Amino acid sequence: MKTSRAAVLTQYEAPLELREFPLPQSIEPGAALVKVKLAGICGTDVHLWHGQLPIPLPVILGHETVGVIEELGDGLTHDWTGAPLAAGDRIGWSSSINCNECYYCRIKPQPTRCLKRKAYGISYDCSVAPHLLGGYADYIYLRPGTAIFKIPEELPTEAVVGAGCALVTSLHGAERIGLHMGDTVVIQGSGPVGLASLAVAKASGAATTIVLGGPSHRLKLAYRFGADVCIDVAETSVEERKAKVLELSGGFGADVVLECVGIPTAVTEGIELCRDGGRYLVLGHYGNAGTIALNPHIITRKQLTVAGSWGFEPRHTKAALDFLAWARIEFPFEYLVAEPFTLDRANEALQATASWTTAKSAIAP
Amino acid sequence: MKTSRAAVLTQYEAPLELREFPLPQSIEPGAALVKVKLAGICGTDVHLWHGQLPIPLPVILGHETVGVIEELGDGLTHDWTGAPLAAGDRIGWSSSINCNECYYCRIKPQPTRCLKRKAYGISYDCSVAPHLLGGYADYIYLRPGTAIFKIPEELPTEAVVGAGCALVTSLHGAERIGLHMGDTVVIQGSGPVGLASLAVAKASGAATTIVLGGPSHRLKLAYRFGADVCIDVAETSVEERKAKVLELSGGFGADVVLECVGIPTAVTEGIELCRDGGRYLVLGHYGNAGTIALNPHIITRKQLTVAGSWGFEPRHTKAALDFLAWARIEFPFEYLVAEPFTLDRANEALQATASWTTAKSAIAP
Amino acid sequence: MKTSRAAVLTQYEAPLELREFPLPQSIEPGAALVKVKLAGICGTDVHLWHGQLPIPLPVILGHETVGVIEELGDGLTHDWTGAPLAAGDRIGWSSSINCNECYYCRIKPQPTRCLKRKAYGISYDCSVAPHLLGGYADYIYLRPGTAIFKIPEELPTEAVVGAGCALVTSLHGAERIGLHMGDTVVIQGSGPVGLASLAVAKASGAATTIVLGGPSHRLKLAYRFGADVCIDVAETSVEERKAKVLELSGGFGADVVLECVGIPTAVTEGIELCRDGGRYLVLGHYGNAGTIALNPHIITRKQLTVAGSWGFEPRHTKAALDFLAWARIEFPFEYLVAEPFTLDRANEALQATASWTTAKSAIAP
Amino acid sequence: MKTSRAAVLTQYEAPLELREFPLPQSIEPGAALVKVKLAGICGTDVHLWHGQLPIPLPVILGHETVGVIEELGDGLTHDWTGAPLAAGDRIGWSSSINCNECYYCRIKPQPTRCLKRKAYGISYDCSVAPHLLGGYADYIYLRPGTAIFKIPEELPTEAVVGAGCALVTSLHGAERIGLHMGDTVVIQGSGPVGLASLAVAKASGAATTIVLGGPSHRLKLAYRFGADVCIDVAETSVEERKAKVLELSGGFGADVVLECVGIPTAVTEGIELCRDGGRYLVLGHYGNAGTIALNPHIITRKQLTVAGSWGFEPRHTKAALDFLAWARIEFPFEYLVAEPFTLDRANEALQATASWTTAKSAIAP
Repeated sequence: MKTSRAAVLTQYEAPLELREFPLPQSIEPGAALVKVKLAGICGTDVHLWHGQLPIPLPVILGHETVGVIEELGDGLTHDWTGAPLAAGDRIGWSSSINCNECYYCRIKPQPTRCLKRKAYGISYDCSVAPHLLGGYADYIYLRPGTAIFKIPEELPTEAVVGAGCALVTSLHGAERIGLHMGDTVVIQGSGPVGLASLAVAKASGAATTIVLGGPSHRLKLAYRFGADVCIDVAETSVEERKAKVLELSGGFGADVVLECVGIPTAVTEGIELCRDGGRYLVLGHYGNAGTIALNPHIITRKQLTVAGSWGFEPRHTKAALDFLAWARIEFPFEYLVAEPFTLDRANEALQATASWTTAKSAIAP
Repeated sequence: MKTSRAAVLTQYEAPLELREFPLPQSIEPGAALVKVKLAGICGTDVHLWHGQLPIPLPVILGHETVGVIEELGDGLTHDWTGAPLAAGDRIGWSSSINCNECYYCRIKPQPTRCLKRKAYGISYDCSVAPHLLGGYADYIYLRPGTAIFKIPEELPTEAVVGAGCALVTSLHGAERIGLHMGDTVVIQGSGPVGLASLAVAKASGAATTIVLGGPSHRLKLAYRFGADVCIDVAETSVEERKAKVLELSGGFGADVVLECVGIPTAVTEGIELCRDGGRYLVLGHYGNAGTIALNPHIITRKQLTVAGSWGFEPRHTKAALDFLAWARIEFPFEYLVAEPFTLDRANEALQATASWTTAKSAIAP
Repeated sequence: MKTSRAAVLTQYEAPLELREFPLPQSIEPGAALVKVKLAGICGTDVHLWHGQLPIPLPVILGHETVGVIEELGDGLTHDWTGAPLAAGDRIGWSSSINCNECYYCRIKPQPTRCLKRKAYGISYDCSVAPHLLGGYADYIYLRPGTAIFKIPEELPTEAVVGAGCALVTSLHGAERIGLHMGDTVVIQGSGPVGLASLAVAKASGAATTIVLGGPSHRLKLAYRFGADVCIDVAETSVEERKAKVLELSGGFGADVVLECVGIPTAVTEGIELCRDGGRYLVLGHYGNAGTIALNPHIITRKQLTVAGSWGFEPRHTKAALDFLAWARIEFPFEYLVAEPFTLDRANEALQATASWTTAKSAIAP
Repeated sequence: MKTSRAAVLTQYEAPLELREFPLPQSIEPGAALVKVKLAGICGTDVHLWHGQLPIPLPVILGHETVGVIEELGDGLTHDWTGAPLAAGDRIGWSSSINCNECYYCRIKPQPTRCLKRKAYGISYDCSVAPHLLGGYADYIYLRPGTAIFKIPEELPTEAVVGAGCALVTSLHGAERIGLHMGDTVVIQGSGPVGLASLAVAKASGAATTIVLGGPSHRLKLAYRFGADVCIDVAETSVEERKAKVLELSGGFGADVVLECVGIPTAVTEGIELCRDGGRYLVLGHYGNAGTIALNPHIITRKQLTVAGSWGFEPRHTKAALDFLAWARIEFPFEYLVAEPFTLDRANEALQATASWTTAKSAIAP
């Protein structure tokens, strides 16, 4: 019987354990067995490791993965866009599956808030068959209903993993808050979500982009992605940053501010950076990181629009792959990915992301 | 020389003083002298009296006024819509004048945030000629550039003052947050802004409207305006109200929540009443009433849209008068106005609004 | 073996034939067998009868049907909204089933343009089992994937059939073109789609509604639905109607014009009725009824927005049932339905709709 | 007394006449006398010369002009954005002045449809003082209320005239029809409006841009502006172009088609190039060039959105200058302008535009 290794989170803040699981004996109709090529480490994985979100344990982490089809279940003949699928194809997929039946899938509809949503690398107890439902492993099992996407040959695996769930998240967020040609856009954060949001803002016609982030190797990437001004938050005060943003926006503040940080005080700072009638996107608060003191008067008086955005839909994964295809020269997401770790060094990969020593670490099993 | 009496705020929290001012000897081109027929007391006037907003003193309060033209300056021949104007006409007007030249008037544009905006009854030191720039007076002087509206004969003065600045504020707010046919709408507050927002929500096709407010005489009006359910905040807990809203919305929360209260904790409560993907309008926070503890995670996770709205434009005044004309049977705003006080009892009028003993008090000089 | 009668269109413009079909011996998982209670005759059925749309023959017509569940297939335990389903329940359903997989279902998405869409009463050859896929019959068979809706007890069957596919079509159209509180709206046509569009416009806050239609019994219904002005097209010229619309809109034309006629010249007339910057919805052109001479200059010069809308999604069926539940007093759609014909008189029912002698005819098998 | 030469259209299709007019003896408050530096020849000037639009004669043509302030009237101290103005400043301006008072300026509002709009170089009889209200002259007189813009030093005059009224027209059109990141966009026409629309589409994130136009020197410019595919309309049939667009859009058609041609048959062709649910902008039909046969069924069935757009507002002129400032490297509008003609050769300049021998001709007096 064939098996697959996997790096398993068995206890919060403990090292991942390398375990072996049996490959499924048969692939159910509509499912697929996929050999992992490259698994990205997302900042969310660090939060999960710290126990900041309620998930089942033990779990195989990894929700930003590219692999090669090993075996296809009956009936799974085409990808989500209708392109034919075969063993050997290199693919990506949307990390969660919607039920398509609940109140939020059907009636309102807010499919990213599906009441039964489950995500690879996050929501599945790996002690239960088919076990292999996370990316930090030799193989991953894709359940029926997964939105699978064949990756075009000209697109490097590193670009897809480098964009990871950050780009799809940013595309969804941009849709919620609205980005218009000519906007002055502030991006709070220069991690993967910040860089992806910068790319989306630039591609949507932002006239001026200002990144507040760090450390310097990430700001260099931001400049490479075309940021007009980058400000290192470790070397500046809130007041200095506000002064600079005002200076760059005629004294009034930015048209749009995109929060891609996840630290509550960023919201306090960011709302102050919007001009009157401006828009503020709370995109980075996937975890519950505590409260801020907010004065509702500022929302009325500045007549702000503040929006949140959660996850993404399969159409955003499609849009992200399309975007990489036409805009990769301008926004080389592959530069985010450092030399990958092998699977037995998964802990080091996780630590590299936790400590911000790379823009993005990855595992090539 | 003719004079006009006026009720003047000379010191915060002190009684208004009845003073006499000379009528202007000549009316400048584009201006008008107007005999006050009915001046509404707005909740904002109470905040001004308490000193909660920075204004010049002494000031003649009153920014919700209907009057009759006494004399027109040269060149002022038509109202804002193009209807001819003559002495004797009954008119209303937008309470503030835009500069039409600044960054927010022209470039962005957010005209309600005009950098040079001045409002009758709020922004003018009455010790300076032409003195009479507030409604609690025998006469008011309308400066050139004021958006004046002739009131159609069939529209009672009480309806216009009863709608007051609440209806225009609500129309602007509805535009910002978006109201759609079939929405379940919660209105926080049953004062003039709450009732006006209820009317706007109903007229925009809200399928279910729930008002959280009080006291009971205001909730009776809310029922008269067609509210489906009214909940007295004095007799219920936050939890009870949330349970009721969930029950009335399939367990998920309202599509839209309109905050028309001005007390910061209403925002804490209201955000919890929105369904995922819902919308929240912060409409009542004209004054700085302090902060709340807000967790940005809730905005991301529930992917909310939160909007503020400040003041209104002349086109909202036009829309409000049109709305009263076609929807007054359904939403009888005149019922809000209690028997008016005479000008020498202006303090009593102000107290009646401060103590919520009437929905709206008014002065008939 | 049990059988069901059905009125079958075997040849264009020939009388419908009453045939008998076997009931299916077993109901497949997810499907349902339904006893027809009331089947509406839609104007489209007349077009189908004339052979104006390409469909397979023979076909059992009828796509606006209410029935009672006779038997449920395995797994079909809840309706589209999640309400439990059981034999004996009175239900309605969306008349077409989407594939959820094609370019228009997934990628763009325009689900009403699904590449594999099939509609009950239109797209199914009834010589092929399970035969019973149209409403003019004793029984109808609902295929797996049909969006089924339990009808609330307080909602009469006549109201649901009276609203028919007209209301869902109008709700979708209104979404496409946008209806705003305070709009002056012209509705071209007073058949079921015209009346439903009138109801939707009124409920969305139209300040003034003008119906151009006929004959008089339909205009009476339009007045009952709250139209401000109805103009009989048989008694007026194009010029007279234009003059009246201009008179009712300050000389400039309507904010929105909704075409619910299906005759090309209505479009020529309707575009002229829009004010500059106005919106025009081409809602009635389900069939190919020929061309008009259009000058593109008018679209540029008047900076119009012209939109089309095709069919509807299950969420519109849900919205329509909700709308009937809260707005039926104001818009009594049951008044549209005349005394139903028995199934053996299906031809008479069809002729009644063809000749406009009733607002809507129906069959109670 | 000082005078200015001007090239005057005295009779349709006759050569322009060089006449001399007195400079105004005094500049009224708010006005300005400007020395013309470069006056663009717009395609509309050719239409005017042919008598295809109703204008007064004699007229000094020229509505795309850059000049240097000679003298400022009292009170004209700042440009439209608030920047200080002085004699010697190089400026551009919006070619028409709104009344700010009419139904379309105030109430609806559609300011480009101002009922009293007048445009330099089009609407003014030059036999009446102050005569000099067109750009084909040594001097132009800017009336009070003109939206004037100081041109930043780094922006060449040729870029501003090269962008001309085409860029502002395209920015307004894009706003009306909506352009989204990732769209496949077809641009019909490769004249100034086509090239500007291409630039706006690219900057707004179009993933694929296809230009249908000619002749080849213009298509070369389109490639220089970043078009993915250009198709010469002189060398291809309607069917070939449709086949190519379908091939480049997965077989379904473009998300958006922008008509920048002004020939009615382009509309017939263009509507066929839209995918279902697509958008079509009629931007080029400033003149009445006749009708097409349109089948309204296509609008319903494909559920298209078709929009028109007329002229532009001062905020679009501001946006155009900003756009040139940040995107000029990518979209070098100065390449459109051929070596300018002197004023005495104005006829040759007009003929150069009429015969499409250059992308844009210009006059440097």
